[in-house]
Amino acid sequence: MTLSYGREYLAIPGPSVMPDRVLRAMNRASPNIYEGDLIDMAAGLIPDLRRVARTEHHVAIYIANGHGAWEAALANTVAPGEAVLVPATGRFGHGWADMAQGLGIETDIIDFGKSTPLDAGRVEEALRADTAGRIKAVLVTHVDTSTSIRNDVAAVRAAIDAAGHPALLMADCIASLACDVFEMDAWGVDVIVAGSQKGLMVPPGLSFVFFSPRAAEVRAAMPRVSRYWDWTPRANPQGFYQYWGGTAPTHHLFGLRESLDMIHGEGIEAVWTRHAALARAIWAACEVWGQHGPLALNMPDAAHRSHAVTSLRIGAPHGSALRGWLQDKAGVTLGIGLGMAEPNDPAWHGFFRIGHMGHVNAHMVLGVLASIDAGLKALDIPHGQGALEAASTVIAGAA
Amino acid sequence: MTLSYGREYLAIPGPSVMPDRVLRAMNRASPNIYEGDLIDMAAGLIPDLRRVARTEHHVAIYIANGHGAWEAALANTVAPGEAVLVPATGRFGHGWADMAQGLGIETDIIDFGKSTPLDAGRVEEALRADTAGRIKAVLVTHVDTSTSIRNDVAAVRAAIDAAGHPALLMADCIASLACDVFEMDAWGVDVIVAGSQKGLMVPPGLSFVFFSPRAAEVRAAMPRVSRYWDWTPRANPQGFYQYWGGTAPTHHLFGLRESLDMIHGEGIEAVWTRHAALARAIWAACEVWGQHGPLALNMPDAAHRSHAVTSLRIGAPHGSALRGWLQDKAGVTLGIGLGMAEPNDPAWHGFFRIGHMGHVNAHMVLGVLASIDAGLKALDIPHGQGALEAASTVIAGAA
Amino acid sequence: MTLSYGREYLAIPGPSVMPDRVLRAMNRASPNIYEGDLIDMAAGLIPDLRRVARTEHHVAIYIANGHGAWEAALANTVAPGEAVLVPATGRFGHGWADMAQGLGIETDIIDFGKSTPLDAGRVEEALRADTAGRIKAVLVTHVDTSTSIRNDVAAVRAAIDAAGHPALLMADCIASLACDVFEMDAWGVDVIVAGSQKGLMVPPGLSFVFFSPRAAEVRAAMPRVSRYWDWTPRANPQGFYQYWGGTAPTHHLFGLRESLDMIHGEGIEAVWTRHAALARAIWAACEVWGQHGPLALNMPDAAHRSHAVTSLRIGAPHGSALRGWLQDKAGVTLGIGLGMAEPNDPAWHGFFRIGHMGHVNAHMVLGVLASIDAGLKALDIPHGQGALEAASTVIAGAA
Amino acid sequence: MTLSYGREYLAIPGPSVMPDRVLRAMNRASPNIYEGDLIDMAAGLIPDLRRVARTEHHVAIYIANGHGAWEAALANTVAPGEAVLVPATGRFGHGWADMAQGLGIETDIIDFGKSTPLDAGRVEEALRADTAGRIKAVLVTHVDTSTSIRNDVAAVRAAIDAAGHPALLMADCIASLACDVFEMDAWGVDVIVAGSQKGLMVPPGLSFVFFSPRAAEVRAAMPRVSRYWDWTPRANPQGFYQYWGGTAPTHHLFGLRESLDMIHGEGIEAVWTRHAALARAIWAACEVWGQHGPLALNMPDAAHRSHAVTSLRIGAPHGSALRGWLQDKAGVTLGIGLGMAEPNDPAWHGFFRIGHMGHVNAHMVLGVLASIDAGLKALDIPHGQGALEAASTVIAGAA
Repeated sequence: MTLSYGREYLAIPGPSVMPDRVLRAMNRASPNIYEGDLIDMAAGLIPDLRRVARTEHHVAIYIANGHGAWEAALANTVAPGEAVLVPATGRFGHGWADMAQGLGIETDIIDFGKSTPLDAGRVEEALRADTAGRIKAVLVTHVDTSTSIRNDVAAVRAAIDAAGHPALLMADCIASLACDVFEMDAWGVDVIVAGSQKGLMVPPGLSFVFFSPRAAEVRAAMPRVSRYWDWTPRANPQGFYQYWGGTAPTHHLFGLRESLDMIHGEGIEAVWTRHAALARAIWAACEVWGQHGPLALNMPDAAHRSHAVTSLRIGAPHGSALRGWLQDKAGVTLGIGLGMAEPNDPAWHGFFRIGHMGHVNAHMVLGVLASIDAGLKALDIPHGQGALEAASTVIAGAA
Repeated sequence: MTLSYGREYLAIPGPSVMPDRVLRAMNRASPNIYEGDLIDMAAGLIPDLRRVARTEHHVAIYIANGHGAWEAALANTVAPGEAVLVPATGRFGHGWADMAQGLGIETDIIDFGKSTPLDAGRVEEALRADTAGRIKAVLVTHVDTSTSIRNDVAAVRAAIDAAGHPALLMADCIASLACDVFEMDAWGVDVIVAGSQKGLMVPPGLSFVFFSPRAAEVRAAMPRVSRYWDWTPRANPQGFYQYWGGTAPTHHLFGLRESLDMIHGEGIEAVWTRHAALARAIWAACEVWGQHGPLALNMPDAAHRSHAVTSLRIGAPHGSALRGWLQDKAGVTLGIGLGMAEPNDPAWHGFFRIGHMGHVNAHMVLGVLASIDAGLKALDIPHGQGALEAASTVIAGAA
Repeated sequence: MTLSYGREYLAIPGPSVMPDRVLRAMNRASPNIYEGDLIDMAAGLIPDLRRVARTEHHVAIYIANGHGAWEAALANTVAPGEAVLVPATGRFGHGWADMAQGLGIETDIIDFGKSTPLDAGRVEEALRADTAGRIKAVLVTHVDTSTSIRNDVAAVRAAIDAAGHPALLMADCIASLACDVFEMDAWGVDVIVAGSQKGLMVPPGLSFVFFSPRAAEVRAAMPRVSRYWDWTPRANPQGFYQYWGGTAPTHHLFGLRESLDMIHGEGIEAVWTRHAALARAIWAACEVWGQHGPLALNMPDAAHRSHAVTSLRIGAPHGSALRGWLQDKAGVTLGIGLGMAEPNDPAWHGFFRIGHMGHVNAHMVLGVLASIDAGLKALDIPHGQGALEAASTVIAGAA
Repeated sequence: MTLSYGREYLAIPGPSVMPDRVLRAMNRASPNIYEGDLIDMAAGLIPDLRRVARTEHHVAIYIANGHGAWEAALANTVAPGEAVLVPATGRFGHGWADMAQGLGIETDIIDFGKSTPLDAGRVEEALRADTAGRIKAVLVTHVDTSTSIRNDVAAVRAAIDAAGHPALLMADCIASLACDVFEMDAWGVDVIVAGSQKGLMVPPGLSFVFFSPRAAEVRAAMPRVSRYWDWTPRANPQGFYQYWGGTAPTHHLFGLRESLDMIHGEGIEAVWTRHAALARAIWAACEVWGQHGPLALNMPDAAHRSHAVTSLRIGAPHGSALRGWLQDKAGVTLGIGLGMAEPNDPAWHGFFRIGHMGHVNAHMVLGVLASIDAGLKALDIPHGQGALEAASTVIAGAA
């Protein structure tokens, strides 16, 4: 039999659970795009987005997914033939590098593997070695969605400064914005890339590039930037239509308005603290399960774990079996392991991820953990006892 | 801080969690009420409702809540001055009796208290004693939402038959239909009363009276039945408009269509089994918590516990404190204790209820239990250890 | 071919077009029914409903349709064996009388036919003749939805006063509330009956009984009122749950909140003026069409025409043919003729109605008229030329 | 006073009126993006899109607006330094050329003004003159949304062939797809650009590039195409995630599924015929109004008018005044004139447009025309009499 009939719960690392408020705001007739409600509302989006990223500077909203924002960030700052330095800590650093190659950009990749955060010292070394000034930007993945590694972005700023190198510091915050602490201005970040569908709790379809005055200067010196990606008209818009370079993403903007109201209603620092507490509860359970049996957190060092996604190793075929059981029996969809093995490799079935980003509270997370606990038992996968008590203890202490 | 931001979870014993499918079906333009989609769709509702109640007989749909259906059932069968026998096992037996009194009906109440199911032997005695034939019907609450007691309706049928009494057997299934096993025809029930907002997963506003041919005969002999409650035109409708005696509840009917599709898609027996398994998981946790400290299931005998709502005693002020903590910190709304004490009595704060009816799965229930566990810890309410493991073990064994 | 693909337009006299705002407000998760948003919101409904009916007195909200409110009004004020006087100007006066008979009330009906408003003089005569004081109430249909006759309710008050008779004045405003001017207190009306699905723009499922202190006194003297209909607990509620006598119609209440905001945002007098102007545009077109050919307004005297529904005569089979053409070709659903002939009488096909109540503006009404004009041409039904210009002239002059 | 309260009607040339079915399909929880409903559903989108464009070949779906699809089409086929030939018949030809310039492409523009369709003979001349083979593609705007000119795309194919030139034929069908007849394969079109928010009736956020095998060959020979715009992985996708190059536009895809069901349910040819008939009704009214006074269709030749948008000249300040009146008094939003004058030029106020694309039927269009008629009267703008009769006559004849 199945105990899955009920509200299905999606615990993948994006798209995240969409709040009813956001969906309701998007469930509306088309607005006029030249004047009226939409135009009036849209003006407030920019300052409210800035407060999420903790910046006083610019933000361009694109109709695109995160891959589009990757491309946009590069298209505005790095010309074909120039180079970027990419310290990779999982799949998505390589992904961004791949987008760069598609633009004709050279990519110097430092691969830190799948369970180790980047070492800012090696970034500094690489920059010092760049005496020819090839490197235009350092592309850091703040949180890698595949490995759940969280990198120290401020340390990379320090490394760039220590090397005295003019490279821009660009951060991929797709999986971390509005989840993990991030201070764009205080940390000296030049460009942030983000998407709507994770911490921002809006369906996929919007992405964001935040950029500093220094990045704007670099843009100004570019030989050419394609119209669709050019962030200039979005930094100093002449009007709503001009901002969008065509038709605006009307319905998504109403959704974004609602999500920003939710985030600032709770408070961005409270949002960070909530994600941190829920992550600690998840880790506590995982550590207990891991005391006996194969389940292990992919990232050993808690100081470098994402607060929005947790990657786990459990050995094949347990990963796929557990995901299947939770889907079929408990109404929970866990994330597949990504980038840990190729899909046609039997080892592929030994990983899974838990998404815990955005619109997520104690009930939702505890329900996922208890469902995993039931699944481990049902599938006879060895595991330590007391994981759920450990998690509820964290929640009790934090809330 | 709070860990409640996220999808709020409503664990009260009705209204239950409304499925997105149902809400989506209701979010539509007004239909024509004379021909077209609505009329075509409505025809299938009656047979599908019958399958939920396991009857071949009639069902009248009313625009009303459960109290309205209580009144409708009586208005069709018991005239002013006639009597009903009410074995009460909590607040709602008295409530139905009160509705009867409002219609001028005499009520013979046998009060079984708040933690004991009805004793069919005493019903039989009362009927045998009714040599004057005053008693027109026996009103049984299948599941009492306040105490979570589930009564043995078939045993009451046997008692009536043993007494050789012509009284109709009427059952209040408001809190049990599509949750607990119920076999209207097999158990010889003459009238069932139900509402839309619990096991049927449709917002409050519709209620249902199922009735047998014998009940229809009793109706036919009534001196007068008010037009609004008269079930006759709804048993043999001349047309859609006539069925409703005016404007139909258009949007609710589309919601009901969807919920019946969901129920029969899963299978009514699977629905019952799911509720039973989830209830056992809840009881298992509660029993462990109760090993040390004040928490106790209101109904000691598991064989007479509802599968849709669980009433708990925890002592004042723990009940209200725990409800408050879950609301404020975990995003879970528990039900207040009902009928256990007066609201202005300090003892009132010593009870709470968990609703687990309708659109509910392992994730939802386990999340509630783990949230309670965290609350017990946070509030330093003594409790046994291992409750969540006990619950996940039940789920693992059942799913 | 068909030109109906697009947003279908429902021009029947109820349910009316539901505003997106109302539907969106209803498309939400179940709320807690003991505390929180719902309870806080509900408190404001009563004063805002009062402002729609222009009364300082009471209003009871029922989970029921208009027929239920008819029964409720009578159940609270007229006991079995007592009598009501019913001046009927179409189907719905007879319908209310029929509900009265179902309660055992005697009904003295004065039938004014289908194209003549009531004559208050004859009401006065009937009351003067009631020397025995049999008549407990006069039941006036403010607007009859079948004939579109609007009666002069204030004149009936004057007649009752002139006769010195203690009968209550009860008005059916189901088809007129928030459409036609109505002044409950200024006109001396004791009881109003209304429903949610017409001028109030909320899906069917709620109805309303407004009542004066005198009506409350009459209620207090009643031997018995059924619990479901008893308005007493709804006039002086002890609490939210008590108000409802069980589960509240949660989702409808959120819809009602939105509709009341819309009405009072526009202003109730502006709502009346809008309905009046749109009605005049419809009449202007109909009068031109009627200059040549069979189409005629059912109610010759404009001073007694509803501002919310227009009944038309066009001769069989033109009525049904025209309705069919508009449905199939233009995306417009007109109302069937009601009460003018029996459905199995060929003459039945000679009538139709246009609903223009609630959420309706110039675009919507003009589109219906132009669609009818196209239908008359397509079906070769003779009609006067220039109807649409006449209508647009009215709109131009009024807006 | 205002007669605008009611359902507001948006008659701008995009975004168009979104069907309730589409909005309802998008109002849903996030789906899993690795397996399940979304993946199963998405497979059918490609063949159904092909049937809309009448092609057997490829289509790439982008998360972007129409401007993005313009860029995508060029990015896949024309390298920096190569040239395109742009016969412009309004603003959007220049807009596409501008996107080309942003990519470093040279643009040879032949400007045909604002009221004349392109002359294929001049295209042929230009191609014959291109003996150096600079021109890589001819960019034709099928329907220009600003002027409402519809160009003869097949004639351009003939011109290219007559010139024996290898240039690709690329058509902007943003304002025409699923409105005006378009036969991609039969007309020999190599690339079509389209967006979701007009004839396809889905909120802005998706755009489409259809491409022929010849265009695919040209792509294969390109030195480099950016990853975001590269259509290759979308023509031969390895999997759902790979198709999207990141997160898919989950909610939009469910909306698109619904709109394609609606289009093919009606039949693409029926869709075209419906748009044609409604356009003729609009033109008929405009021609009558124009018999006396300033209102004139921008495009004199009906054979080259769009069936989806109608541009009108009425002289300043009548255009803005009329738009304002319809907005404030009738609930209708007309489109501003675009590209006819600069916004700060008083002449800017002398134009307006009517959108009639996608989910639009007789009622909607006739309501707009009658509202305009009322506005002309209210504002004392001279105009011919009988326009609405002329329109209803067209509808009567066509439906």
